[in-house]
Amino acid sequence: MRNINVGIIGFGTVGAGVAEALIKNGDLIANRMGFHPVVKRIADLDITTDRGVDVPKSLLVTDAHLVTDAEDIDIVIELVGGTTFAKTIILRAIEHGKSIVTANKALLATYGKELFEAARAHGVDIGFEASVGGGIPCIKALREGLAGNHIRSMLGILNGTCNYILTKMEADHADFESVLADAQKNGYAEANPALDVDGIDTAHKAAVLASLAYGRWFTAQDVSTEGIRSVTSRDIECASRLGYRIKLLAILKNHGGRVQVGVHPALIPIKSLLGSVNDVFNAVWVEGDVVGKTMYYGRGAGRQATASAVVGDVVDIGLNLMNGCSRRLPAFPVYDGCQDLIPDGETSSRYYIRMRVLDQPGVMAKVAGVLGRHDISLSSVAQDETEYQDGVVPMILLTHVAKGQALADALSELKTLPEVKMAPVVFRIEDAQ
Amino acid sequence: MRNINVGIIGFGTVGAGVAEALIKNGDLIANRMGFHPVVKRIADLDITTDRGVDVPKSLLVTDAHLVTDAEDIDIVIELVGGTTFAKTIILRAIEHGKSIVTANKALLATYGKELFEAARAHGVDIGFEASVGGGIPCIKALREGLAGNHIRSMLGILNGTCNYILTKMEADHADFESVLADAQKNGYAEANPALDVDGIDTAHKAAVLASLAYGRWFTAQDVSTEGIRSVTSRDIECASRLGYRIKLLAILKNHGGRVQVGVHPALIPIKSLLGSVNDVFNAVWVEGDVVGKTMYYGRGAGRQATASAVVGDVVDIGLNLMNGCSRRLPAFPVYDGCQDLIPDGETSSRYYIRMRVLDQPGVMAKVAGVLGRHDISLSSVAQDETEYQDGVVPMILLTHVAKGQALADALSELKTLPEVKMAPVVFRIEDAQ
Repeated sequence: MRNINVGIIGFGTVGAGVAEALIKNGDLIANRMGFHPVVKRIADLDITTDRGVDVPKSLLVTDAHLVTDAEDIDIVIELVGGTTFAKTIILRAIEHGKSIVTANKALLATYGKELFEAARAHGVDIGFEASVGGGIPCIKALREGLAGNHIRSMLGILNGTCNYILTKMEADHADFESVLADAQKNGYAEANPALDVDGIDTAHKAAVLASLAYGRWFTAQDVSTEGIRSVTSRDIECASRLGYRIKLLAILKNHGGRVQVGVHPALIPIKSLLGSVNDVFNAVWVEGDVVGKTMYYGRGAGRQATASAVVGDVVDIGLNLMNGCSRRLPAFPVYDGCQDLIPDGETSSRYYIRMRVLDQPGVMAKVAGVLGRHDISLSSVAQDETEYQDGVVPMILLTHVAKGQALADALSELKTLPEVKMAPVVFRIEDAQ
Repeated sequence: MRNINVGIIGFGTVGAGVAEALIKNGDLIANRMGFHPVVKRIADLDITTDRGVDVPKSLLVTDAHLVTDAEDIDIVIELVGGTTFAKTIILRAIEHGKSIVTANKALLATYGKELFEAARAHGVDIGFEASVGGGIPCIKALREGLAGNHIRSMLGILNGTCNYILTKMEADHADFESVLADAQKNGYAEANPALDVDGIDTAHKAAVLASLAYGRWFTAQDVSTEGIRSVTSRDIECASRLGYRIKLLAILKNHGGRVQVGVHPALIPIKSLLGSVNDVFNAVWVEGDVVGKTMYYGRGAGRQATASAVVGDVVDIGLNLMNGCSRRLPAFPVYDGCQDLIPDGETSSRYYIRMRVLDQPGVMAKVAGVLGRHDISLSSVAQDETEYQDGVVPMILLTHVAKGQALADALSELKTLPEVKMAPVVFRIEDAQ
């Protein structure tokens, strides 16, 4: 049976998981696919730390070029992260005729166009299933299984750290800062959590999904991005009373040929499937014009789940090499699909608005009047007298679908009312059903 | 741009949906994949009824051989159903060098081995994504995305009719017979509902999934099958009070190398993701040894959803034809995986048991004693005195994990107790979390 030789660059958590999976399940893959994936070499600056996986010392090298340039390697797996060295070694491996597997969404969302053009020029493949949704084969579902569908919309819970924090805030009635500190202690969040909690990682993933779905290159710059620092346990509680849960969502929608690509904390129904995705789990909700609504769920990160997706790509590329059909599936084809981004102000959504207002007659009428003048109608109003404090009460409004610009204008006006005692807190509502 | 020519045999609901999708989204597929799928011919005995899709009359023929034998057709889509004519025309098309796409799970679960051997001999592909889970690309996820995983277990809600009936029984507190009658009136169930409600259709699908996961051919005969006729609104209500919902599940588990393949009505937690899959929707829950838990959700039947899966297969096979790599992905590889079926008696499960017992001292002790002697311990007991009737009360028991044979033995013994006034009703419990 033919071997397909794999070289790994980056022997961290995921690299070790990939080596482990390929060694442990290599025979299974051989039985199923007719070739044997062999870990031929692993490059990392640190080749002494024990990664908890039993690989022959002779495979470990410190020079990445012994992987990128090696004659005896068919597929190079890039797991170093970052966008500088990772880009350099991928381009170098491509020049040496290697196909690539990467989990690096930041790299794809920044230099995707350049990398895929290089791969095309050299007739090699780039697998990137692990870049979005961890172990969930959602990229494969989107670009192969749903290939015959126009993608109407996607909603994604794509960052395990944020989902863990939001789940924990709800369960413990705790504030963002304290849950984040706990998550950092337990290894669920990085020392510098910005990439996760500010929505940047989710934006990278949204850019990858949008590029696949809509026929042009989207970069992270194209993604209107908010993180979860603004979510309070107060809002989580208010949302919950109304039957909603707050999640950080990648939101992709086709508005008649113009595309909305954003990352926002948003309310989704607790009873919806997407609303039931908790802890570190991820899910991608996809609505196609033929298939209707579908959802893909699983672990979005971690040594093993990510390894599963990387190995899936190794299998795919291995089959191409076995059958002499590299580049069988076009990656990121650019075509005349949805070329334009829709400005935030022109998107429509339902909204959740929390304010504190003076507890006196006529306030509700005044607030509703402002909203009405901007064409925003209310689907639900809650004003809780038990929360009365110094003549001020909280007011929670849920709107029907309204234009983003109309909402922004209404909020500016509301802020100027003497009866409104706190700048309104606003989140989108996505029904996902 | 090259055309890939498609012939459809069977112009019913799904056939019309496939023609519609290929015509409507043919340009999109061409943009994404670099070839144009063209509906070249459609065969059906009835070519006069309006199917609500605009195809040139000249494409319609009554003789299926004008599709199977045609020089100008690359891919034959079989959508006639049944296992006799469908088998004949597929084999004939294969002999003429055509690749096949089919949604016919009954055929695969009966003659799969023969069909795939013929395809191998003639160097053509058979796509069957639409055979399980309708529009959900779950076959692709299982055999490609999760190719590097040993499959520990799968739980599937795979029959839309059953799921619709069970959802409706719960919502309306209605009995099976009346909901079935309604479903038949509304077109959600066939005039002869046996294939659906007796679990046969789900068993066909379970056989396909098991064959993919475990490296041998499973037929519907290998699947231990129960339907939903035994589910009462009473049990749905009792389950609901305990936090569970009753679903018809395909249950596949690897018990240390021996495989359990069954179809059973079972309790799953209402709060679990799988427990939230209602109405005609389907879902497949898959646990792999590397990826952990994943789930795939969508419409399990219907004109459009099924068409989406068929078109996905057309795209896959079209890419193979374009790149000269037919049979790139081995279908149903047989290998030394999990070869043996585990007898029902040796499987383990948690169980729900509903009985009616005499309302007198010592009955609970006696019942628990019988179970205990068979090594079955209880996790929950509910006896509702408000339901007292003629000296008899209902008793609901949930067990911890117990062996199937032990449960069967205990039930035989319980039935002989004078205090037990109704043959115990028993369902499995699957935690799916």
